[in-house]
Amino acid sequence: MHPSPAARVDRPRREAYSLEELLDVVVRVFIERGYDATSMEDLARATGRTKSSIYHHVHGKEHLLSLALSRAVDALSAVLEEQAVGEGRPVDRLERVVRGSVQVLVAQLPYVTLLLRVRGNTEVEREALERRRSFDRRLSALVEQAIAAGEVRADLDPRVVTRLLFGLVNSLTEWYRPDGEHGPQDVEDDLVAFALDGMRPRG
Amino acid sequence: MHPSPAARVDRPRREAYSLEELLDVVVRVFIERGYDATSMEDLARATGRTKSSIYHHVHGKEHLLSLALSRAVDALSAVLEEQAVGEGRPVDRLERVVRGSVQVLVAQLPYVTLLLRVRGNTEVEREALERRRSFDRRLSALVEQAIAAGEVRADLDPRVVTRLLFGLVNSLTEWYRPDGEHGPQDVEDDLVAFALDGMRPRG
Repeated sequence: MHPSPAARVDRPRREAYSLEELLDVVVRVFIERGYDATSMEDLARATGRTKSSIYHHVHGKEHLLSLALSRAVDALSAVLEEQAVGEGRPVDRLERVVRGSVQVLVAQLPYVTLLLRVRGNTEVEREALERRRSFDRRLSALVEQAIAAGEVRADLDPRVVTRLLFGLVNSLTEWYRPDGEHGPQDVEDDLVAFALDGMRPRG
Repeated sequence: MHPSPAARVDRPRREAYSLEELLDVVVRVFIERGYDATSMEDLARATGRTKSSIYHHVHGKEHLLSLALSRAVDALSAVLEEQAVGEGRPVDRLERVVRGSVQVLVAQLPYVTLLLRVRGNTEVEREALERRRSFDRRLSALVEQAIAAGEVRADLDPRVVTRLLFGLVNSLTEWYRPDGEHGPQDVEDDLVAFALDGMRPRG
């Protein structure tokens, strides 16, 4: 409406911001309606854009899903990568993986929620699932190292413990809300205390 | 193909079994496609019946959802009901609620999975969510009793502990499979040990 030299200069930055903003809305729609049930028309309506302006950024619906899932998987993998080869006792590295994962969940809540809903119906979903499975295997190896070092109890099945630990972290997507009654640091601390030491007081 | 007096006598029993069988398939379709995206045509195709033979059992799609969700909620509520007013220390009743809930999840896995996916888009879903919330409140009260009795540590937020505890139980729907490598009793025991005493060895 007001074409000016300043507006022209800003354009590339606004376009870049645009994809980010677009993805936030798209992920919300995928979660609410389900990916399969969502059409490009739905996405155009929800984002207040024309389909062709969306196609300016991406090749289509599956490309949007791919960008969204990568964001969650990349962030989670970075946490594990850092600790898997890190210094210190295995149980301390495990604690840092849990803390880092909680932080990713809290910061990228809709993206991780979408990742956890993926069932492998498309190539993009299968790739994301494969990366999640690789994450699980490396985490499981870290749990086994901690057991071998006597830092995690040996009377529980390490694979079940890995599943439970990540079930616990992932359950945040079901109830944690950024504007809710629990602060992110309190939730992180309570979750770690619960996982490592359980509900019963230590005598 | 072989009409005989015996077949005639069996008919009422087979019809009763039929609704059960129908519901098992319907729940699987609801989980795979999502409730909103599923049509009565889809259900007819998946169950190998005509729509009118489905309407012989139920009023429609929402009725099927209602029957499926009730099955999960009724079973979970029965467990809590029994322990909320039961005998014994609060922490022991809490343990029995967790064990009972794990048993319900394992026995009714697709039904509980569907319940946990419900987002409140229809009246039936909102009712199920309200019953889940009432379950949460009663469980939270039991956690608080256990804290007051000194049987659960007091340094964690009781509402966060309740959420984590049920996040842990509900996470079974994400990975537990009846034909998988972990037996139901082992999973139940490991989950209870994890929740009560944590991963770290007790000194």
